Amino acid sequence: MVGALDSDISGSSYADPELAALFSDEAQLSAWLQVETTLAQVQEALGIIPAGSGALIAQQLQDAPPELANLRRGYEQDGIAIPALTQSLRQRLPATAGNYLHYGATSQDIVDTALMLRLKRATGLLDARLSRLMAQLGDLAQDHRHSVMIARTRKRSAAPTVFGLQVVDWLAPLKRQRTRLEQLLPRLLLVQLGGAVGTQAALQPDGPAVNAALAKALGLAAAEPWHVQRDGLVEFGNWLAMTAGLLGKMGQDLLLLAQSGIEEVAFAAAGKSSTLPNKSNPVLAENLVAQASYCCSHGASLQQSLLASQARDGVCLALEQLTLGPLVCGCAASLSTASTAIERLAVNPQVMLDNIARDRGNMLAEAAVYALSRVLDRQQATKLVSAACAKSAAEGVHMIDALRAATTAAVDWDALRQPENYLGSAQQTIDRVLARGDE
Amino acid sequence: MVGALDSDISGSSYADPELAALFSDEAQLSAWLQVETTLAQVQEALGIIPAGSGALIAQQLQDAPPELANLRRGYEQDGIAIPALTQSLRQRLPATAGNYLHYGATSQDIVDTALMLRLKRATGLLDARLSRLMAQLGDLAQDHRHSVMIARTRKRSAAPTVFGLQVVDWLAPLKRQRTRLEQLLPRLLLVQLGGAVGTQAALQPDGPAVNAALAKALGLAAAEPWHVQRDGLVEFGNWLAMTAGLLGKMGQDLLLLAQSGIEEVAFAAAGKSSTLPNKSNPVLAENLVAQASYCCSHGASLQQSLLASQARDGVCLALEQLTLGPLVCGCAASLSTASTAIERLAVNPQVMLDNIARDRGNMLAEAAVYALSRVLDRQQATKLVSAACAKSAAEGVHMIDALRAATTAAVDWDALRQPENYLGSAQQTIDRVLARGDE
Amino acid sequence: MVGALDSDISGSSYADPELAALFSDEAQLSAWLQVETTLAQVQEALGIIPAGSGALIAQQLQDAPPELANLRRGYEQDGIAIPALTQSLRQRLPATAGNYLHYGATSQDIVDTALMLRLKRATGLLDARLSRLMAQLGDLAQDHRHSVMIARTRKRSAAPTVFGLQVVDWLAPLKRQRTRLEQLLPRLLLVQLGGAVGTQAALQPDGPAVNAALAKALGLAAAEPWHVQRDGLVEFGNWLAMTAGLLGKMGQDLLLLAQSGIEEVAFAAAGKSSTLPNKSNPVLAENLVAQASYCCSHGASLQQSLLASQARDGVCLALEQLTLGPLVCGCAASLSTASTAIERLAVNPQVMLDNIARDRGNMLAEAAVYALSRVLDRQQATKLVSAACAKSAAEGVHMIDALRAATTAAVDWDALRQPENYLGSAQQTIDRVLARGDE
Amino acid sequence: MVGALDSDISGSSYADPELAALFSDEAQLSAWLQVETTLAQVQEALGIIPAGSGALIAQQLQDAPPELANLRRGYEQDGIAIPALTQSLRQRLPATAGNYLHYGATSQDIVDTALMLRLKRATGLLDARLSRLMAQLGDLAQDHRHSVMIARTRKRSAAPTVFGLQVVDWLAPLKRQRTRLEQLLPRLLLVQLGGAVGTQAALQPDGPAVNAALAKALGLAAAEPWHVQRDGLVEFGNWLAMTAGLLGKMGQDLLLLAQSGIEEVAFAAAGKSSTLPNKSNPVLAENLVAQASYCCSHGASLQQSLLASQARDGVCLALEQLTLGPLVCGCAASLSTASTAIERLAVNPQVMLDNIARDRGNMLAEAAVYALSRVLDRQQATKLVSAACAKSAAEGVHMIDALRAATTAAVDWDALRQPENYLGSAQQTIDRVLARGDE
Repeated sequence: MVGALDSDISGSSYADPELAALFSDEAQLSAWLQVETTLAQVQEALGIIPAGSGALIAQQLQDAPPELANLRRGYEQDGIAIPALTQSLRQRLPATAGNYLHYGATSQDIVDTALMLRLKRATGLLDARLSRLMAQLGDLAQDHRHSVMIARTRKRSAAPTVFGLQVVDWLAPLKRQRTRLEQLLPRLLLVQLGGAVGTQAALQPDGPAVNAALAKALGLAAAEPWHVQRDGLVEFGNWLAMTAGLLGKMGQDLLLLAQSGIEEVAFAAAGKSSTLPNKSNPVLAENLVAQASYCCSHGASLQQSLLASQARDGVCLALEQLTLGPLVCGCAASLSTASTAIERLAVNPQVMLDNIARDRGNMLAEAAVYALSRVLDRQQATKLVSAACAKSAAEGVHMIDALRAATTAAVDWDALRQPENYLGSAQQTIDRVLARGDE
Repeated sequence: MVGALDSDISGSSYADPELAALFSDEAQLSAWLQVETTLAQVQEALGIIPAGSGALIAQQLQDAPPELANLRRGYEQDGIAIPALTQSLRQRLPATAGNYLHYGATSQDIVDTALMLRLKRATGLLDARLSRLMAQLGDLAQDHRHSVMIARTRKRSAAPTVFGLQVVDWLAPLKRQRTRLEQLLPRLLLVQLGGAVGTQAALQPDGPAVNAALAKALGLAAAEPWHVQRDGLVEFGNWLAMTAGLLGKMGQDLLLLAQSGIEEVAFAAAGKSSTLPNKSNPVLAENLVAQASYCCSHGASLQQSLLASQARDGVCLALEQLTLGPLVCGCAASLSTASTAIERLAVNPQVMLDNIARDRGNMLAEAAVYALSRVLDRQQATKLVSAACAKSAAEGVHMIDALRAATTAAVDWDALRQPENYLGSAQQTIDRVLARGDE
Repeated sequence: MVGALDSDISGSSYADPELAALFSDEAQLSAWLQVETTLAQVQEALGIIPAGSGALIAQQLQDAPPELANLRRGYEQDGIAIPALTQSLRQRLPATAGNYLHYGATSQDIVDTALMLRLKRATGLLDARLSRLMAQLGDLAQDHRHSVMIARTRKRSAAPTVFGLQVVDWLAPLKRQRTRLEQLLPRLLLVQLGGAVGTQAALQPDGPAVNAALAKALGLAAAEPWHVQRDGLVEFGNWLAMTAGLLGKMGQDLLLLAQSGIEEVAFAAAGKSSTLPNKSNPVLAENLVAQASYCCSHGASLQQSLLASQARDGVCLALEQLTLGPLVCGCAASLSTASTAIERLAVNPQVMLDNIARDRGNMLAEAAVYALSRVLDRQQATKLVSAACAKSAAEGVHMIDALRAATTAAVDWDALRQPENYLGSAQQTIDRVLARGDE
Repeated sequence: MVGALDSDISGSSYADPELAALFSDEAQLSAWLQVETTLAQVQEALGIIPAGSGALIAQQLQDAPPELANLRRGYEQDGIAIPALTQSLRQRLPATAGNYLHYGATSQDIVDTALMLRLKRATGLLDARLSRLMAQLGDLAQDHRHSVMIARTRKRSAAPTVFGLQVVDWLAPLKRQRTRLEQLLPRLLLVQLGGAVGTQAALQPDGPAVNAALAKALGLAAAEPWHVQRDGLVEFGNWLAMTAGLLGKMGQDLLLLAQSGIEEVAFAAAGKSSTLPNKSNPVLAENLVAQASYCCSHGASLQQSLLASQARDGVCLALEQLTLGPLVCGCAASLSTASTAIERLAVNPQVMLDNIARDRGNMLAEAAVYALSRVLDRQQATKLVSAACAKSAAEGVHMIDALRAATTAAVDWDALRQPENYLGSAQQTIDRVLARGDE
């Protein structure tokens, strides 16, 4: 154990357990065996290796024990576990069959293809979590499409909005993330079978045929060897970091809305303090922000693997293995955390109205300028409103009252005073985003 | 001036001048004016502002002088130049028209939309540079599809390949980058018109209509307000960083191929030393690697803007402005540098053959194992070949000669000795990638 | 121009102009000439080059014109401007003197030593800005050592504190930064004179003597060649990023304190909006946060130069030149911005008290638990206080009133009700930090 | 398990097991208990809590079982495990003693102080690994101070050097790293005891006294509360990243020296391939480069914690916990890996000479220019040498022979031809660095 991500105490907060299972040694080993056995089976079917040898390999390796210590020694020695694994597996096989294990493949073929098997499941799980969150956010936007609140820009009260529109700022980019995921998957979930240097020379002339058959058998796409073309993985890593980043905005917004003195939202079952009975800490929102930063730096680290040199590169493989798991598990944890946060979220429209009242009409400054501009010159209107804002701040009067006292202009003051009359196209925007499928 | 990127000495090496022009103050200001005037024109056309006022604004602002000092003071004060700009422009207009300048808009609407106008041109230029490079790489792969060389993996000689296949490792991901660019552009090139808080309240009920008309007039797509939905820009930033990263691999490979002692490629007009007449430094390749790292870190920095909080966020805007220009100009410089590197590249197939000769057949070890495996047990074959490799290293004999002396197995030794007989599906892979359109 | 940093509009907000001047082409060129001429002078003094040649070089090059276009071509060609520069300078000299220009040096010797000359001035300027800010923060802490306010933890009201103690959280790390700067300077400000490969072979056996004399003449420290030992620069880069990061905390805290609904501080001359007369945007604080993120990513990028390979490495030099200027100028801008922010800061102790009043005693929960614990079991005390907090939230009563009504315990309720009675060792901490010199 | 770092297969390659043990749940829990019990003991000694209660707490908690599931639930709920821990521990104590557990402390006090206890051990282990490596490198430099080889700059043969001088480029910065570590430790290993908001209010007026006593009892330094002053940790994180980065240079150099076609060094027990009997992969060197990149990105991520807001910040704590462990364990693994790499390193001076021979005197170009310059004009000398280099490349003759044939200048051609005559001050530099203590 080396950190919060794989701790039995804190791990579940930062790494989605279902995804973490896909990055366990057991899952890795199982996927390696699946690739080796499926390779032998398709090679037997294509007549490349002797009849029966594929079936024998599949049968004998089905229940191969992990032997992690042996694999660890192999990894330390070779920088990859496959040489030790195949050597050990051959000892379980008659020599005739052993000769046809790992036939025509290189270690990275097995590791990459096995990774893709696991990423296929991982992307399915991520998509499910994303869909669930999007449904929750859609409901939340709908439920609060008329909850009027102060829109804050650059940390200052600006003008009226509805909470549903703020939710749309979280939801709309996630809808685009689903489109991005859909578009990137065909570039990601590829069989790797290039042999030692990407020429598939040991299989000549059957390389492409084996590649296609293996892809079909494993539910992946066939592909030219991509040992040092890591753009599919990097694109996926960027997607993960972006998803966590977008949830980081949601977390940041929730922290600001839930903070003491604002409190327009609260979390059920928020965090306790060891010494302060008055505290309910916004732990879930904090985790979303922390994870955004963590995933961003891991995404950038993974991106270095684009520089995989020559025909295969051990540095980049190591970097990928160090960064990809935390990135996938961290992004999935963010999605789960976000869902839990929404589940536990108590939105308080009354506090939103109380905060509007505390603002004393300053948030209506733009509305007042545009209303006055219909009957006055705009510069003059702006000056009047600025003066009224200053008077409101100095004397504690409502800005609209201060303004009304300063002008004889014919304005519907009662209408102007109501924030709900200055919401522009908020409802249309909410409708459009909710109606939109993935873009 | 603060660094190598904007230096008159080194700037042209790191920032593509044509792209840099799009990020100049002049280009910025011109785009801001274009957005303000087009906004007034479409509002006049829609009857939102008085007849004639849009035309008058457009006419008067056409030749507005830059007044950079005034804008700088405004920027220092407001964190954005638009308030100072509109104030200054209004002084050039009669009050009646001045009232309708920047009508219903917020500063960020102008800045974001103007950015998109420039990015539309920038993405066109990037695409053109990418296309040119892809064409060059296609020709290079074709020209050297039969240039046999040592494939190196993990920095060690591995097995035979052709240089054309190495080029394919550079080209294939770039083809995918074109697809990615095509897919992301509709998410990027959007009009921004949200008003103060994204409700378009000052324009109610005409917000969506103005948005659509402005988009059409400017050649952008209409969109719901995206003030704090920066995913389109971040996706583009990641694309830029990935492109530079992929060219970094090309640079890295070229450095390794051109290095003294290998010298399978060379650059015409390579860099001189101030003290070493024997040097020809691989400057272009170095720049590709440096730029990959630089763009990667800028992409990660830009990605933080996903956390734009509340309804608008000044921190994220500042971060975007600091990072986006260097990223665009740096990526474009990498594309140009890569094209120049390919232009100046002298590939030397004879040196490739000389290096093969120096290898004394070790790179044929896998070929020998598979050849022997047809007549011997594979483990036995592997042992024989390992021993022959050791003997070759110790005694300087050709590995195949050492092997032949150690076995009576019936193998076509002359055929085995030829690296060009062990190239697998390299030709098919080259054909497939060259034939492929953007994926 | 490629971005916000070197724009005439926004540059002064993000890059300290006085520091930026040190990274201008003029400053670079001037420093290069200074190194070349001083080298010749010390070599003449040591009898390494003919008498008179050093003086002649110094005299002739004093007013050498920049010829930026020539240097740009040289840079594009060679990846470094010195070969073109020395070639051009030699044309201004008689051949006999020209032979002794750049004698025994390599381009990187000139570039690195010249960088150190500029960094010596830069570190002086940074130190002055840091000292000024520390003095301001010391005064601010002193002025507000008794301004009682709510301490907020994890974005929630926690317990009482004083504003002066929050200022100490900004000041104390800056005091340590001065110590760090003092400790790193002897590892940074070094002469570089290694010759082509770090052996000073062209100067043998005088390399060390020339190194020492050049160092003395330039006010730098003598050093063994450090062409590929970039740890001094990276340590400095990390210091810059840390400084900006620490000011980012100050900016973040100020944003939270100045935000609408809290408003315990305000900025004179805050930012205007183009459409909202009610806004005063916390631009300076935003810039501190943005700069923290930007400098952090540049620091990490610069850190890659530790991997400078072999005896000299062009990739790392390019990366350094791309990142160091923005990092120095950005950090200095943060220091200046922080000073301006403190100058313009209006702290409002009355609003702090108003916010305490709005809290209705919840922030005294820990105080109440410890007060009750003197007469009751602590668990029981905690339960009583928790119940009182809940009652306060539900019914709007003061927590202490709710608590008093719920127990007969003998507590000095009036004393407990005063936040200023629960400030612990805040005054001692302030005194200690203010009294402390650099650590 | 989420990745390569905590895998039973690959973990030992990337995370130093002895350091990883310090970041285990068991080590964390044990340190938390140590802090809680020591706190009670010093409070009893100071008369702050009743006589006997400290001893009772210490005795009862000595063998507290981990209850990880309980702590996990607590962590998920509270974002920190201490509230759940203290609640659970109190159940093991009589109420009277339970009241005095965690007296006056906040959760972060325990977590931070416990972290420092573990970092004290970690820094000791890191220092030991660093010392061992420095000793090895010192020996290596000494052993090969006369092993003449080609110095390569910008990936091209430049001039002669000795292998010992290249080792000095690895060693000298590590010596400075020891100095940096020594300088930073007093800023790092601090007791944390600030109470809920850094005022130590619950302990008033004894906060400073308890702080001092606790520090003494735990072997740490007393300190004003630093809940949101994370600069000591960030400085340490940067040190870790820098150390890994410097070892990355060593790894990179070794990769280039060991690569096929150069082979001036080799590794005993290098990595096997699953398909290529000819391969011996430089796994250790690759890991050093990968780790450098990984630690750099973790260091930058940790650095974000400088922005810890307000009086305590959950986001930054989470980020620290995610990044610090991998960074410490990764850096330590790099140090161990580097030691193993040096142990297994076979330097081959004969191959160095062979490569010199293959260079045919081009690396003597500078030497020749300086030799000729003593009798000819330098520009003329440079032209002659350039021509001889070109002739050498074109015709395969030794450069010195080509030069000799082109001039009648009186030069000691035999001396010039020997690379060992052009090593400048290499021996002095080696001596100085080896003699130097930490700087």
